[in-house]
Amino acid sequence: ERETDLSADAVERGEYRHYMLKEIHEQPEAVARTLEGRIAGSRILPNVFGVDAETLLAQVKNIHIVACGTSYHAGMVARYWIEALAGLPCAVEVASEYRYRQTVVPPGTLFVAISQSGETADTLAALRSGRASARYLAALAVCNVPESSLVRESDLVLMTRAGPEIGVASTKAFTTQLAALALLTLELARLNGIDDARYEELVGELAALPRMVAEALKLEPQIALLAERFVDKQHALFLGRGASYPIAIEAALKLKEISYIHAEAYPAGELKHGPLALVDEHMPVIAVAPNNQLLEKLKSNLEEVRARGGELFVIADTDVDVKLDPDRGALLRIDAGNNLIAPAVFNIPLQLLAYHVAVLKGTDVDQPRNLAKSVTVE
Amino acid sequence: ERETDLSADAVERGEYRHYMLKEIHEQPEAVARTLEGRIAGSRILPNVFGVDAETLLAQVKNIHIVACGTSYHAGMVARYWIEALAGLPCAVEVASEYRYRQTVVPPGTLFVAISQSGETADTLAALRSGRASARYLAALAVCNVPESSLVRESDLVLMTRAGPEIGVASTKAFTTQLAALALLTLELARLNGIDDARYEELVGELAALPRMVAEALKLEPQIALLAERFVDKQHALFLGRGASYPIAIEAALKLKEISYIHAEAYPAGELKHGPLALVDEHMPVIAVAPNNQLLEKLKSNLEEVRARGGELFVIADTDVDVKLDPDRGALLRIDAGNNLIAPAVFNIPLQLLAYHVAVLKGTDVDQPRNLAKSVTVE
Repeated sequence: ERETDLSADAVERGEYRHYMLKEIHEQPEAVARTLEGRIAGSRILPNVFGVDAETLLAQVKNIHIVACGTSYHAGMVARYWIEALAGLPCAVEVASEYRYRQTVVPPGTLFVAISQSGETADTLAALRSGRASARYLAALAVCNVPESSLVRESDLVLMTRAGPEIGVASTKAFTTQLAALALLTLELARLNGIDDARYEELVGELAALPRMVAEALKLEPQIALLAERFVDKQHALFLGRGASYPIAIEAALKLKEISYIHAEAYPAGELKHGPLALVDEHMPVIAVAPNNQLLEKLKSNLEEVRARGGELFVIADTDVDVKLDPDRGALLRIDAGNNLIAPAVFNIPLQLLAYHVAVLKGTDVDQPRNLAKSVTVE
Repeated sequence: ERETDLSADAVERGEYRHYMLKEIHEQPEAVARTLEGRIAGSRILPNVFGVDAETLLAQVKNIHIVACGTSYHAGMVARYWIEALAGLPCAVEVASEYRYRQTVVPPGTLFVAISQSGETADTLAALRSGRASARYLAALAVCNVPESSLVRESDLVLMTRAGPEIGVASTKAFTTQLAALALLTLELARLNGIDDARYEELVGELAALPRMVAEALKLEPQIALLAERFVDKQHALFLGRGASYPIAIEAALKLKEISYIHAEAYPAGELKHGPLALVDEHMPVIAVAPNNQLLEKLKSNLEEVRARGGELFVIADTDVDVKLDPDRGALLRIDAGNNLIAPAVFNIPLQLLAYHVAVLKGTDVDQPRNLAKSVTVE
């Protein structure tokens, strides 16, 4: 096993073998900090996005989210939330694509930049060109580092308060980004006339996130066993739908980054349009199925996966009806209901899966080959 | 080698070993038909989208493109074109995602559905729910089958005229979809005040597409040799940027579908945000680099690919400056300039690559395992 020389930091890692594992387990606390002082009762406090933010956010008619890597996946989740709950058109784009094309910016568009470090080169360049063009109503940074360039150069700021993240593969930064983006979604929903009872219910769901993440972490012994079934695989296919589709993408990225397994994600409905040709006994399929709607649509695909000898792993809500042959797959249950924040909860076992597969493979978990923590060059 | 029983159709296949190869070679003619009677001099003729289409298209303020599989990739290219040239906000989404979420439809939005068969279940369902909601200005079908449900149920229609496509892996349907979407883009650009000289120049570029596709097909002997370097591979990574990024995705899908190689595509700028960890001698990288801008940004990545023993294949424009070690990769040149329609041209050698790899692997090219030509169930 190769291990990066991090012995000087061993104390900070405490009982954990790797920073990544420590950071995975810090998530209930990190999310609690992200929400702390921002929710009172069942309402989001005014101006958590900055002084006079409410006036500005009330003028928002359209949203552009720009980010890279894991932060981009958080933005993808937010797009589902914002369109459904705030009724505002929302586009999300990889920063390196955004900055080199001619984009159209409708009046009243809020630019949202997401970056853990606040120094991601393409995201910063996108923010700067967006601001220079003066076509945006304002720029909001969702960021983990208060003194970063991204924070300094944005009009509004929502800090994720995840604490320092050392592992190259982002975990707690992602989960806190989702919490922050849920705050933004609910504030925009309130300003755009969401039903008050529904609003309070959703805020309550968000407030429950630390507890739900802590519950999901209890699946670790099961996941560690499951990881043994991936260690000899070269491929994996993750499926999701709706706001869980970006979670499938994030799970595939995590497995790629630290276990070097070629994992890819698809929206489940696209399976028949091509990737099903790849499914055989060498390609395990992992479906994120928070509720029955996805599973209903997946059922014929699941049959095909089984018929071709593929193993099938389903992460599903407790009330989802699914039967799996234990020799050919496994079912993990998480009690997340149809909660707004379910994507953040379903992500937890997938982080743990990537981690335990990597440990079994003996890779350098905290410093995977070829990758840097913050991509500050283009 | 397994071969589907298509002997009754052998005459129609003529000299070609597979329908897919025949259809690849029909593309100059298919594109010429798609453009025929629609361009006169250097202008697009009025009302090629239907009677009174001009009046309707002049009211378009926003565009939603909905499709599945390969047609979705054509829509992704169109998004780059429409935002850059017509200045209209354009969103493109997989039909199975679109139809199950709450979307926001700004006033004056044109719904564009793309489907070769016009019977794709999710695309049809998306069209029907879009029309039922009465939130759209109008629905335009880009389709290859005149008597299809999609055509019958749309307000405006642009037929692709590719002729019957038998191979499950779509080739000429995709290229003609791009031609049709370029017509739509240029019409919308004209109605939104593009500079007249620029408009005529772009129409001229589009009109040159049949000739450019014919030129690109001449690369076949080179590609057939190149295919030998992929036949033992289990993985491939395709990179693109801008309007060539969807071409990288389409190329990866084609290789998946018929050669069962796990190919994946990324926007080149995302490489450092994760997928670079996968690159080693088992993972060839194929970059679509129509011009120097992409290549400049790729250069440090290219060094990393080489340093890790990965083979690198670049498809570049004739004037692009790139040096490759012939033992560790190859360079293919295509004279497509910075042509509007370059994505459609760069796609041709990638279709041929997927085809020749599949032939070498002995797969059932025209009827790949697990897949159907038209996905008429969900």
